[in-house]
Amino acid sequence: MSNFKVPYGKKLNLGKYDPEKTVPYSENDSGKAKAKEDRKKKIKIMSKIQERLFAEGKQALLVVLQAMDTGGKDSTIRSVFSPLNPQGCQVHSFKKPTDLELSHHFLWRIHQKVPRKGMITVFHRSHYEDILVTRVHGFVDDKLAQKHMDEIIQFEKTLVESGTQIIKFFLHISKDEQKKRLQDRIRDPEKHWKFNPDDLQERKKWNRYHRYYEEAMTATSLPRAPWYVIPANHKWVRNALVSSLVCQKLAAMNPVFPPPPKGLNFNKINIT
Amino acid sequence: MSNFKVPYGKKLNLGKYDPEKTVPYSENDSGKAKAKEDRKKKIKIMSKIQERLFAEGKQALLVVLQAMDTGGKDSTIRSVFSPLNPQGCQVHSFKKPTDLELSHHFLWRIHQKVPRKGMITVFHRSHYEDILVTRVHGFVDDKLAQKHMDEIIQFEKTLVESGTQIIKFFLHISKDEQKKRLQDRIRDPEKHWKFNPDDLQERKKWNRYHRYYEEAMTATSLPRAPWYVIPANHKWVRNALVSSLVCQKLAAMNPVFPPPPKGLNFNKINIT
Repeated sequence: MSNFKVPYGKKLNLGKYDPEKTVPYSENDSGKAKAKEDRKKKIKIMSKIQERLFAEGKQALLVVLQAMDTGGKDSTIRSVFSPLNPQGCQVHSFKKPTDLELSHHFLWRIHQKVPRKGMITVFHRSHYEDILVTRVHGFVDDKLAQKHMDEIIQFEKTLVESGTQIIKFFLHISKDEQKKRLQDRIRDPEKHWKFNPDDLQERKKWNRYHRYYEEAMTATSLPRAPWYVIPANHKWVRNALVSSLVCQKLAAMNPVFPPPPKGLNFNKINIT
Repeated sequence: MSNFKVPYGKKLNLGKYDPEKTVPYSENDSGKAKAKEDRKKKIKIMSKIQERLFAEGKQALLVVLQAMDTGGKDSTIRSVFSPLNPQGCQVHSFKKPTDLELSHHFLWRIHQKVPRKGMITVFHRSHYEDILVTRVHGFVDDKLAQKHMDEIIQFEKTLVESGTQIIKFFLHISKDEQKKRLQDRIRDPEKHWKFNPDDLQERKKWNRYHRYYEEAMTATSLPRAPWYVIPANHKWVRNALVSSLVCQKLAAMNPVFPPPPKGLNFNKINIT
């Protein structure tokens, strides 16, 4: 799995990551079946660990999902996180900031949504938008972007040091795949509501987005909060990889059931 | 299903509701299999409607779960709501109020957690605790309880009138079943963390809890926000009934995919 990780302190080049990639699975029906089976297995393990995480109440996990439009954030959430117990798993979508949010520091709205102890929280978009879309549209210049990056690094350090683990995914699709998915939204009336004409304008800025993604991930992929570039043209590959990496992370956190209240002798409790 | 509904304007007598009841299912393996199959079917339908609810963004659903200790709130959430998309489904547990919460009106913390448009929110315990546990422990006298009930009725009316549907469940177990479940927590070391010695004290107040539950449900079961008493000694019966009633509610809300942005001609969009 380490070959999906954005290396620390080395300039990331997205061009070297193939969104069509299916490895470690073969690109055929049996590879696909294997990937789906793997996902199911991993989700079962995740569910079990989630129960312990919730019971323990000492650690938390923050999953950051970023992608170009149509990159599959929604569908990843549905496929990988739906089966978890919703009592211990929350999803937050960060949309265009409101006036109130804009009147605060950009991390103000983020802080409010980080997981409390025992929880898994998925960020559908995140604080990273403040060094991505804002840069592409010129609201944030290079100097401010650098400041934001420093602040993000510091923010995530604080989280990790207080018991919140972080794992970050860039769901990587090709420009051709985006075209297909946009066309799909146009063809299928049930998907019309998802179609946003602005997406076509954003699509024209593909290369600038990629450049800023590279800079953002290069600066903020650290051992304590790594970025993974997930080949996402094939949904089944994407789902298998994300579930596997989240599962690995949870296993490493190794939460344990807490001890019972002190002074309690379970052999002597009498219920009348 | 109407025989589980707490009738409007008629004094509820919990003694007349059998927690062991399995009807409409037969009390054998085939009944159990049928109930499990029903639950799966209903959840599939719920998932489909949930997508439309989320897309539409005009209505919301609030599900209130109340029960005596060990009544099965957690397990109902896991069985009925886990399969939904967590992006559109949130669970909130209301615990013993904090000092800050106590310094506000009792509905202050509740208001903050009601679903926004498009969402399904499950309350694990709720504003009803303020006319239940608080009464049992004497923090709230009859007069104040009456005031709280009036305020709850008004609060729920406001929600319903602004597009949030409400459905409320009392998961009804017998005192013997609670004993079994508490013993189970004592026997199984993996469940020790769930065991709270205070539960034994609360158990002694069983009848008072029931009396206040009866009063609360009698006063607040209204056509716009009905209470259902779910026989919950058998988990498979409970899960089938809750999923069926939630599904019915969602179907009646009948959310629809929103129209695409105005002025967009889907035959003329060209993606380059």
